[in-house]
Amino acid sequence: MNPDIKRERENATFDVSKLTNILDQGQEKTRRRREIESLVFKDPDFNEQDPNFLSRSERYDQAVRKSAQMILKLREFGIADPEEIYHYKSCVHPDRPSPLDLHLAMFLPTLVNQATTEQMDRFFTAAWNLEIIGTYAQTEMGHGTHLRGLETTATYDPATQEFVLNSPTVSSIKWWPGGLGKSSNHAIVLAQLYTLGNCHGLHAFIVPIRDMNTHEPLPGIVVGDIGPKFGFNEVDNGYLKLENVRIPRNNMLMKYAKVEPDGTYLKPKSAKLTYGTMVFVRSMIVGESARALAKSCTIAVRYSAVRHQSEIRPGEPEPQILDYQTQQYKLFPLLAMAYAFTFVGQYMTKIYHRISGDINQGDLSELPELHALSAGLKAFTTWEANSAIEVCRMSCGGHGYSRSSGLPDIYVEFTPTCTYEGENTVMMLQTARYLVKSYRQAKEGQQLRGIVSYLNESHDRRLQPQAVAARPTVVDINDLTSLVEVYKLRAAILVEMAAKSIQQELQHRKSEEDAWNSSAIDLVRASDAHCHYVVVKVFTDKLGEIGDTAIHSVLSTLALLYAMNGITKNSGDFLLAGLLNVPQVLQISVRIKELLSQLRPNAVALVDAFDIHDKKLNSVLGRYDGNVYEQMFEWARSSPLNATEVHESFHKYLKPLRSKL
Amino acid sequence: MNPDIKRERENATFDVSKLTNILDQGQEKTRRRREIESLVFKDPDFNEQDPNFLSRSERYDQAVRKSAQMILKLREFGIADPEEIYHYKSCVHPDRPSPLDLHLAMFLPTLVNQATTEQMDRFFTAAWNLEIIGTYAQTEMGHGTHLRGLETTATYDPATQEFVLNSPTVSSIKWWPGGLGKSSNHAIVLAQLYTLGNCHGLHAFIVPIRDMNTHEPLPGIVVGDIGPKFGFNEVDNGYLKLENVRIPRNNMLMKYAKVEPDGTYLKPKSAKLTYGTMVFVRSMIVGESARALAKSCTIAVRYSAVRHQSEIRPGEPEPQILDYQTQQYKLFPLLAMAYAFTFVGQYMTKIYHRISGDINQGDLSELPELHALSAGLKAFTTWEANSAIEVCRMSCGGHGYSRSSGLPDIYVEFTPTCTYEGENTVMMLQTARYLVKSYRQAKEGQQLRGIVSYLNESHDRRLQPQAVAARPTVVDINDLTSLVEVYKLRAAILVEMAAKSIQQELQHRKSEEDAWNSSAIDLVRASDAHCHYVVVKVFTDKLGEIGDTAIHSVLSTLALLYAMNGITKNSGDFLLAGLLNVPQVLQISVRIKELLSQLRPNAVALVDAFDIHDKKLNSVLGRYDGNVYEQMFEWARSSPLNATEVHESFHKYLKPLRSKL
Repeated sequence: MNPDIKRERENATFDVSKLTNILDQGQEKTRRRREIESLVFKDPDFNEQDPNFLSRSERYDQAVRKSAQMILKLREFGIADPEEIYHYKSCVHPDRPSPLDLHLAMFLPTLVNQATTEQMDRFFTAAWNLEIIGTYAQTEMGHGTHLRGLETTATYDPATQEFVLNSPTVSSIKWWPGGLGKSSNHAIVLAQLYTLGNCHGLHAFIVPIRDMNTHEPLPGIVVGDIGPKFGFNEVDNGYLKLENVRIPRNNMLMKYAKVEPDGTYLKPKSAKLTYGTMVFVRSMIVGESARALAKSCTIAVRYSAVRHQSEIRPGEPEPQILDYQTQQYKLFPLLAMAYAFTFVGQYMTKIYHRISGDINQGDLSELPELHALSAGLKAFTTWEANSAIEVCRMSCGGHGYSRSSGLPDIYVEFTPTCTYEGENTVMMLQTARYLVKSYRQAKEGQQLRGIVSYLNESHDRRLQPQAVAARPTVVDINDLTSLVEVYKLRAAILVEMAAKSIQQELQHRKSEEDAWNSSAIDLVRASDAHCHYVVVKVFTDKLGEIGDTAIHSVLSTLALLYAMNGITKNSGDFLLAGLLNVPQVLQISVRIKELLSQLRPNAVALVDAFDIHDKKLNSVLGRYDGNVYEQMFEWARSSPLNATEVHESFHKYLKPLRSKL
Repeated sequence: MNPDIKRERENATFDVSKLTNILDQGQEKTRRRREIESLVFKDPDFNEQDPNFLSRSERYDQAVRKSAQMILKLREFGIADPEEIYHYKSCVHPDRPSPLDLHLAMFLPTLVNQATTEQMDRFFTAAWNLEIIGTYAQTEMGHGTHLRGLETTATYDPATQEFVLNSPTVSSIKWWPGGLGKSSNHAIVLAQLYTLGNCHGLHAFIVPIRDMNTHEPLPGIVVGDIGPKFGFNEVDNGYLKLENVRIPRNNMLMKYAKVEPDGTYLKPKSAKLTYGTMVFVRSMIVGESARALAKSCTIAVRYSAVRHQSEIRPGEPEPQILDYQTQQYKLFPLLAMAYAFTFVGQYMTKIYHRISGDINQGDLSELPELHALSAGLKAFTTWEANSAIEVCRMSCGGHGYSRSSGLPDIYVEFTPTCTYEGENTVMMLQTARYLVKSYRQAKEGQQLRGIVSYLNESHDRRLQPQAVAARPTVVDINDLTSLVEVYKLRAAILVEMAAKSIQQELQHRKSEEDAWNSSAIDLVRASDAHCHYVVVKVFTDKLGEIGDTAIHSVLSTLALLYAMNGITKNSGDFLLAGLLNVPQVLQISVRIKELLSQLRPNAVALVDAFDIHDKKLNSVLGRYDGNVYEQMFEWARSSPLNATEVHESFHKYLKPLRSKL
């Protein structure tokens, strides 16, 4: 092991394995996670070539091979718990998406949730056994987040008792569904249902797209891969153009809505039943933010402990770059963020399960709050993590640009979370809608409950411009509970400002909708402040559960850094609203520097605690043993352009050029 | 042409071609630029396959082919003016780096600047005729920005009158030089010179690395490509390990420093002579920031004019997404930034040429200021543009992730500017060193001149915490000159704060160096404020040169938006220092929304004015004609994974799986 990183580990003030157990939510969970990891990493069937050395087609090929193996082995080992499947999969395809993801995570569950018994009989076993490979074709070239705008049509023909599916325009071509391009032979297609001359909105249809035997596209089907992307190279995101494709009536998923043989349409009983999946997926993404950031921090912090550069004091040996204040200032707030998001991810999962329990018992009262929370936190954490990953990458200097660092891959695989499952700005505005509605309810005298209860107090508060600096404030900046309070008040004030902006626009004789659009900047800002408050609060609350003194101490420092850093980055908000005064903001800047020094000895231990296996990390810079340079050289030498000493282009172009000049 | 984008153009309030001429710095320059562009784009020898469809080796091959063609044609057409070569090259390799870049931009110029007459005779003609293809091998695996730490050695052996070059450690292996991996047969190697037992620091040596005829690596040379990267796929960035490689004494570049045959070392007269190139390259990078951002804005704004989505008012057709306030708020400040950086790039080039003139006449007095300015602005503009490109990409929704959008490529080709030619944080600290030094000089009573003269007034100013909101301020927030003044004062105060932080650390008995490191966060912040001030000032000054009323009006709106947006993003700074009061900051938020509405009708025209040829833009989303969807479908269909209808992996893995489950 590299002596620098060894020394770092010796200097840690807490027991790393105990913190790992906390992060895993229990010692037994750590043990089982490691057991599953070793099942994969010891299995020669999952050996792979570095995808960065492969062509797109080879990457896809390798991913299909491993996906097929994975399905076999999961069944062989009897691994069926969703969390365990998740661990297994994230080792097989180290944090990369795979071609069969949508078959497993969307096609099969949608059958279970929306198929009739007859349809289950017809499709489920075949799909479970991978005879049918399916995907979920919702988005079109012209429409993503705004589902009502989808243009694909399914028109019922009572004469033959069939639906006729069509892509009436170029923009209506299905676009983006994972596994659609090459892997799937079936798709659940979302289309506008027309019957007896009326449109009944979006419904789901099972459409065979490729021959079960030859895998050739069926008549009327134009299907293929949408081409290279920023990341997701293993996945055949696809397009699908439907030209008078006929499917039997009972290929419409009819557990809820129905079309009778004569074309009569029967409405579903409740429209909110598929709401839950969306909330669940967004909650999961919060956890993904934490994981992607934890990986990035692991790489950047370990490398910063190994890398020596330049000088602080003349004549002395080059220091570890982790000793530079600027490097600490880049990385430690992100490390704090990774911890914060980890706990927020766990919090989201917990309340999701609690509220789904309620929902299953018919109590939908908390659903709007959960929806708003999952939408906002999905946007907040993915945006924050997205920038943070790039800061980690750039903190590694030139080597951060090498694919061997692993950081470019983390970024390109992660960044789509800002857009899929609800575009982030749209998500923020959905959360804002809930916040403004709650604010208005409070103003009308309703007593709010849950996370927005802070809006109860807000209606008699006003921005007090003259008071900003002068106001005597009782905030103790070193007390986390005090800071949570300050974040809460900031959120309350920004929600109020947004609501008032709408009010003012309405007074300019604008419609409610135009007033909303003209206040959208304020609304996003309010949602952002709300989410920020939730994150600081959840992190602070978590500290109450930590028994181990040493771990409590280091996590408290991280939480304080997270809260304080958020204040300096948004100091205008806190000053504007008179929540903090100028000396306090200046003190916080000074305190941040102290916190950085305090965290310095524990930095490597804090990333070690994430316990990310080297094979999952896939980074020469972030290796546990710190032997960076040797491995980087070895990696480079094995890269494909070095397969021959002389590239053919020399003989084709460079040598002949001589005689022409 | 798409009707939406046609209408946008009809509604513009100014003459686009006149603004293009302003951006090109003259009508004749526009004409000639377009002439050169059409020389390339009409030339079938430069046809290319979309690099996104090729393997790494094919991309490299295509780039070598085009580079070879380019050299032939430039000479054939007699294009020799550096600016014209630049235009030509940026069409041949549309804003992508190429394998021969370092040969042309570093190897040849270094010969010219540092070779003796004898060396010029021996190497220049061969290099000019591409018999010798060279690169510039400076960075090593273990050292980038800190040149003194480089480990490669060149030890003089008087017995044979040769230098013996070695890579004594793994970390000393040369790493990253462009064209080193496969293209070059020579390298200018920077190495620590040892002679007669003494080390004389870094010197440059011409080292043959491959056989001129067979192109095989020479004995003692281990050379190759460093492997796949985040971008730069056309370039064979390479590694070079030297194992007792002997070169004749007169292969050391000896125009300045010399080693006599007996090993006697003769010092160069001045160490600052290569300073200029660095400053020049950094100034160029400021222009690159502007160009990359202009391209990104062109794509995002045009697409936002064509894309319809969701609804503002129920029942009405889906609006162009450019009508959403949030979309305007994402893009228009970046559009303003693209204009700002364009003018700053031109400003840098101008003062570079003015000051180099002075330097050639022996007047070095302005060199430190120029050095500080180019370092700081390089960091400031690349960081800002780097984030901005990603905002543009994500503002295009899902399609921004497709390589067909062009945006992923812009990002990965641009982002290295944050690290190369001086890592950004290091650059900011260099600028800070100049600022703090100037501040101290002013405090000691010296009268500062040039851009830092604002520090003259700063020594009797103090942070007045109690005054923040109460202070009566005379700033007219709608007056750009007033805002420039406010930015200037912010810079002055932050420089003062950083200097005082150092002072305080020194009082804690720290050394100057430790005090510096403990204040590094404040120092970077001060540099950032300084650069921000320069950008706002240059943009404002530029308005004075614009005669056309309509153009003056729209550029003034952009400049105001740039300045105001910078204030809201950093409102804490302005409030802290009492430069603006709370009502003013709130007013600015309201004004920004008005400016967005004001710019809306001119948005497409403002990106059209950048006049970026479709073939340079390389984006289906940003096409001039706005026919996005048709082209996206065509692009996808032609992508390699669609070469066959059925991918072989179906027969290899998916079909056989059925029988096993």
